[in-house]
Amino acid sequence: MPILLPGIRDLIEDRADKDIMDVLTEASPQDIAEVFDSLSAPEMMYVFNLLPFELAIDVFEQLDEEKENQILEVIDRKKKIAILNRMASDERADLFEKLDEKHKKYYLSIMEKEEAEDVKELLSYPPDTAGGLMTTDYVAIYEWMNIGDAAKEIRETAKDVDFVYDIYVLNRHERPIGFITMRDLIMHKPEEPIGKIMKGGVVKTQIDCNQERVAALFSKYDVATMPVVDKKGVIKGVITVDDVIDVIEEEDTEDMYHFGAAGNPPDSYFSAGIFGTAKRRMSWLLILVFAGFLSSLVIERYSSTLQAMLILAAFIPVLMDSGGNAGTQAAAVVIRGIAVGDIDFKDIWRVVGREFLVGALVGVGLGSLTALRAILMGEGGLIGFIVGLTMIISVAVATTLGGFLPLIFKKLKWDPALMSGPFVTTIVDVTSLGIYFEIARRMLTLIR
Amino acid sequence: MPILLPGIRDLIEDRADKDIMDVLTEASPQDIAEVFDSLSAPEMMYVFNLLPFELAIDVFEQLDEEKENQILEVIDRKKKIAILNRMASDERADLFEKLDEKHKKYYLSIMEKEEAEDVKELLSYPPDTAGGLMTTDYVAIYEWMNIGDAAKEIRETAKDVDFVYDIYVLNRHERPIGFITMRDLIMHKPEEPIGKIMKGGVVKTQIDCNQERVAALFSKYDVATMPVVDKKGVIKGVITVDDVIDVIEEEDTEDMYHFGAAGNPPDSYFSAGIFGTAKRRMSWLLILVFAGFLSSLVIERYSSTLQAMLILAAFIPVLMDSGGNAGTQAAAVVIRGIAVGDIDFKDIWRVVGREFLVGALVGVGLGSLTALRAILMGEGGLIGFIVGLTMIISVAVATTLGGFLPLIFKKLKWDPALMSGPFVTTIVDVTSLGIYFEIARRMLTLIR
Repeated sequence: MPILLPGIRDLIEDRADKDIMDVLTEASPQDIAEVFDSLSAPEMMYVFNLLPFELAIDVFEQLDEEKENQILEVIDRKKKIAILNRMASDERADLFEKLDEKHKKYYLSIMEKEEAEDVKELLSYPPDTAGGLMTTDYVAIYEWMNIGDAAKEIRETAKDVDFVYDIYVLNRHERPIGFITMRDLIMHKPEEPIGKIMKGGVVKTQIDCNQERVAALFSKYDVATMPVVDKKGVIKGVITVDDVIDVIEEEDTEDMYHFGAAGNPPDSYFSAGIFGTAKRRMSWLLILVFAGFLSSLVIERYSSTLQAMLILAAFIPVLMDSGGNAGTQAAAVVIRGIAVGDIDFKDIWRVVGREFLVGALVGVGLGSLTALRAILMGEGGLIGFIVGLTMIISVAVATTLGGFLPLIFKKLKWDPALMSGPFVTTIVDVTSLGIYFEIARRMLTLIR
Repeated sequence: MPILLPGIRDLIEDRADKDIMDVLTEASPQDIAEVFDSLSAPEMMYVFNLLPFELAIDVFEQLDEEKENQILEVIDRKKKIAILNRMASDERADLFEKLDEKHKKYYLSIMEKEEAEDVKELLSYPPDTAGGLMTTDYVAIYEWMNIGDAAKEIRETAKDVDFVYDIYVLNRHERPIGFITMRDLIMHKPEEPIGKIMKGGVVKTQIDCNQERVAALFSKYDVATMPVVDKKGVIKGVITVDDVIDVIEEEDTEDMYHFGAAGNPPDSYFSAGIFGTAKRRMSWLLILVFAGFLSSLVIERYSSTLQAMLILAAFIPVLMDSGGNAGTQAAAVVIRGIAVGDIDFKDIWRVVGREFLVGALVGVGLGSLTALRAILMGEGGLIGFIVGLTMIISVAVATTLGGFLPLIFKKLKWDPALMSGPFVTTIVDVTSLGIYFEIARRMLTLIR
């Protein structure tokens, strides 16, 4: 629960406007937005109308799109226009993304023409690309300016720009060719030329670049902002690091959900309905159940072998689990390696080789232990041999598949994490059981 | 492979110093560091000695600690001292962390006294806390200054500070009470007082705050830097967003490894040796194998039931897999919910309730399907009933445990992700098999 909440509630009831303002002007927009989440709609509107305009915009931008809509519906036309014109362009595009056609048209019609064009342009880029992440509010200067010109430009345009730190220097084709920092502005004399001071080597991203790749660039180059360019190298916008952090968290949530075979993530754990959640999870489990039926077929096929040696059934769980678990380990490690950029498709044979070796080593360890257990429990050397050998082969197969399949998924441009733990487990189970009973059947034929 | 590499190799061979410099001064320190990773030690030293001092420091900071050591060993004393004194304080602390006592002592003895003290202080904080993440290179000004004083202070101290955007305003107790932005410096006249311009509500973190919590604060408040304070509220350092991105990636890698029961992550996928990897993974699998032996005991215990109805064996895999998979789904979702802050321990009963309901719904679906499969394959209604009922109960138990256990782990201050997919699967397997055979035994007793 937000700390501010209980106090605010009482103050709203008392209509103690001045006290409310005293509390809120000390708080960050994020904290105020969090308070809004717990207020009723009338309470929220009451507080929102009290906020000074600048703070109101900052708070508005922190709300989810549903609340933003709610507020836009009820505030007066003048305030509506002001908010729509003034809010950060990336947040605004996210809001428009969720609007119905009627509202979209209406809001675009009352906005300033330039701002409306901006919305339409940003909406034209897929949300999970650099174009969908970028803001068009940024400061750029030209190589022929001097420090004094640049300072003037920034004084005029930087008012609503977040994270002004690196300021990109453009040439006459609007291509970013360097940057200066805010620090340079106060370190140098007004008459010094930008072209002399600027640093080259701007790290840029293409407008259609996938958001995962954008995040990797931020992570590698330790930057707070990055310019987005089109095919001709012309600057179209800037991505800020706060949005990149959201992307990283979103991608990692997706990976974890996929790896757990839990479908695509909802907005948050509690926001999803029970039936929707059950349906989403069931769709994956159904596929896995059908795959599981294959294991049943294997056992049915070998029922005479099982009849002859009922004790084989007792080792089914430990063989299935170990194969599945070893495969899950390998898949988890390789999927994460792909996500952080350690592993690429070209490494596939190196990965497969490593995973096979690791699996063989681990398999020998687990196989010896399981064989020993069988012998110590009085099941005899034959059972020990069958169980131990199966364990070695199935663990090695499991780790090899766990390493191989995510890379194949990547090559097919699917999410490698879709090569989930449960999926690997289920595939490996069929394989383990087949190996197990086939070895057992041959042994039985041999000794008879 | 880094793009620059092939060209550079040739240039080094030709001793074409000017051409090497032309290539490198256009590249970012990160790209040059990447090239170093692929060069031999003599090649690396050759290039390093060509770099202008400022660039050399930037590149040095991007290298891993092993390469940093290698370079420090061979460069001359003067350069050694300069690098040690000048490099970013957080990077330097990371380097010292990995040094042996002899080198640590020697380097501290040749550094400036103030810088040596700084290293000792930073080394005193655990690496996974705010104190371990922060840098002591930051710009701070005092509330009684005016804009002109602040600009002067920044001109003098900001030279080696990264991400100077928010500048913290301290009171006479050295406590951060507000901030101004670089933009304010050029928007206001030199004589304007800082106290009038600064914004309040600085988002701070305590020096012993866990790094996961620090990352959550950055993510919520959309800041590029955050001051670190001690118990008295006195500023001790600043954390920058680039290090926070590394923390988020590190924590998410750890979660994925733990969830896949693959132990603690190495530095990168390929950096770990085959034997080390096998050993690390085996330790978890051994625990799971012993747990799997419990499943064997269950089957052995019910061998007369199995003997009487051999077909029961055919459904062991699908029951085990479905229970394990449903439990893995629930655990993945809840572990991620905990990681991003959607779920807290106080929500435990709400989570358990949700997961039970979802499990019951999913179980009814999968149970009906499996029962139907049994009946259609001619196994009869009794087997269908036993298999279907077991599926419903074991899926509901699995999702409930998958939701419950990670939260218990969190309460015990263990990593919730240690409640891994394989671990849930193995626990659920024993339970499913017990339920399965017990239902079967009772049914057999009834019909006899």
